[in-house]
Amino acid sequence: MIIATERARRPSDFVAQRVQPVGTECVFCEGHEDKTPREILAGRSEESRPNGPGWSYRVLPNKFPVLWIEGELEPAGEGLFDRMNGVGAHEVVIETPVHSASLATLPVDAVADVLLAFRERMLDLKKDPRLEYVLVFKNHGEAAGASLGHPHSQLIATPIIPVMVAEELAGAARYYELKERCVWCDILRQERRGGRRAIVEAGGFVALAPFAPRFPFETWILPAVHRAAFEESGADELRGLAGLLGDFLRRMNRVLGDPPFNFMLHTAPLRDSELESFHWHLEVIPKLTSVAGFEWGSGFFINPMPPEDAAEALRADQS
Amino acid sequence: MIIATERARRPSDFVAQRVQPVGTECVFCEGHEDKTPREILAGRSEESRPNGPGWSYRVLPNKFPVLWIEGELEPAGEGLFDRMNGVGAHEVVIETPVHSASLATLPVDAVADVLLAFRERMLDLKKDPRLEYVLVFKNHGEAAGASLGHPHSQLIATPIIPVMVAEELAGAARYYELKERCVWCDILRQERRGGRRAIVEAGGFVALAPFAPRFPFETWILPAVHRAAFEESGADELRGLAGLLGDFLRRMNRVLGDPPFNFMLHTAPLRDSELESFHWHLEVIPKLTSVAGFEWGSGFFINPMPPEDAAEALRADQS
Repeated sequence: MIIATERARRPSDFVAQRVQPVGTECVFCEGHEDKTPREILAGRSEESRPNGPGWSYRVLPNKFPVLWIEGELEPAGEGLFDRMNGVGAHEVVIETPVHSASLATLPVDAVADVLLAFRERMLDLKKDPRLEYVLVFKNHGEAAGASLGHPHSQLIATPIIPVMVAEELAGAARYYELKERCVWCDILRQERRGGRRAIVEAGGFVALAPFAPRFPFETWILPAVHRAAFEESGADELRGLAGLLGDFLRRMNRVLGDPPFNFMLHTAPLRDSELESFHWHLEVIPKLTSVAGFEWGSGFFINPMPPEDAAEALRADQS
Repeated sequence: MIIATERARRPSDFVAQRVQPVGTECVFCEGHEDKTPREILAGRSEESRPNGPGWSYRVLPNKFPVLWIEGELEPAGEGLFDRMNGVGAHEVVIETPVHSASLATLPVDAVADVLLAFRERMLDLKKDPRLEYVLVFKNHGEAAGASLGHPHSQLIATPIIPVMVAEELAGAARYYELKERCVWCDILRQERRGGRRAIVEAGGFVALAPFAPRFPFETWILPAVHRAAFEESGADELRGLAGLLGDFLRRMNRVLGDPPFNFMLHTAPLRDSELESFHWHLEVIPKLTSVAGFEWGSGFFINPMPPEDAAEALRADQS
């Protein structure tokens, strides 16, 4: 990653095209349950019935899945190449019945319920021996790839460990071999002591700007003590995360003006949830810059915003 | 890469926001040479003078470089982390004096001159022993990261081999070790024989849709015979490339409606230009889909367009 300080700007120079609410009602809104696939899981009041109104979150199969739960992998050669069938699962988590709400504005209990739904779905998908990994992610705003404005996140379960996760696991394993310590635990120790890239800490979680981030204001949120697998988190831990996540998103929205963003959960593989070398973390990347030819050709990212300055702006925000 | 056929669409469904001409005149236009940094290289008529009008292309240092030619790398530790200074070079190639022209509309000789300018700059940068790699790339259209509408491409010379190039080199070396053949030579043989992913071949070059492309209509252009390093190409070879590149870009523009796009030249490292295992190629990626949380979290790409169908649409185009 290249920090191009000649191009450095103040935080206010990054204020993105504010995410505009798309419409006021959609198929994800309460009262439209008959227009979606049947729910897999939902937070519901006692008197409500599945696939009707009266819910706080819903988990559905994605209507246009990229992978399907049916079928066999059937790996095969095609000339020089290898292919396999797209076995897996693709689910949508509708985070709230309210079209105009968001994880930044929902009460902490509602955010915690969404995180608990991630955990419950991961534990359930883990029972399928064909699946090796569950990626939880969120696209917020059209520029960050969201096709619907209603607050939602997604789970994609894959029969192989995604390449980027495999690389991260391998790098972390090499570090562990050398030092007998988890690299994220070491980073946490360093950043909590030095403080220049730490943003906020509460409820057993830390938000920090990583060293050499790919994107301006890229942020990692991770448990302050070693935890390899998100789905092994206790309910109290996830409530702590809910509080810190809401706090961080509100800081980000104030400093950057409701930017489009993605988050991606990096967690241990389903079959390796006790890893000493891997520490789960949530990566948040506001969509403020373009990824262009240089990045696609090199794998290097040009970032005009030093992480120390991004952390300072997010830390200082007190509104 | 995941081909999501449930999401598959016809080529016409991908027609992007057409790249709109931005203004009619800018600092890259003829007559504004005093507003740019002084030129490093230019194609000029006999009677013209450096940094004045009368040119067909110009190469300039980038006014906002991400790397600088002055200074030393000075690698250093910072706690857990490593950093080095941003030594390198960042140049802009203005491809034509005409604001509204493009590589798709320029005469083949003018395109060849631009390719020869890439070669000349690479050969010159190669003399600097600190530099290990030159990445040539193009961002066309705002959605593909271009900040100026005037046709231009860029060179970034780096003191280390970019991570993505290093991975490609390592993969190619493993294949070579196993088979004693270049993997791109093998792909060319297979695709030219089978034809389902070949698009067009002329002048010693082949355009093909790669197996498992990251993006819809992703295309590779490569020499039909083994060549590791772009800068070792003869003038006749580059004229052949100019013809095929223009043809391909016109096909792409007709099928996809002048989409924003990037191209990236993948070539051997400056100090390793005789590699038996690496075959230089130009990757062209129209900007038609969003890269979002799933891609950033997994390194997998969801592509709704099978490469066989993309190749067929581009091959069939005869206008």
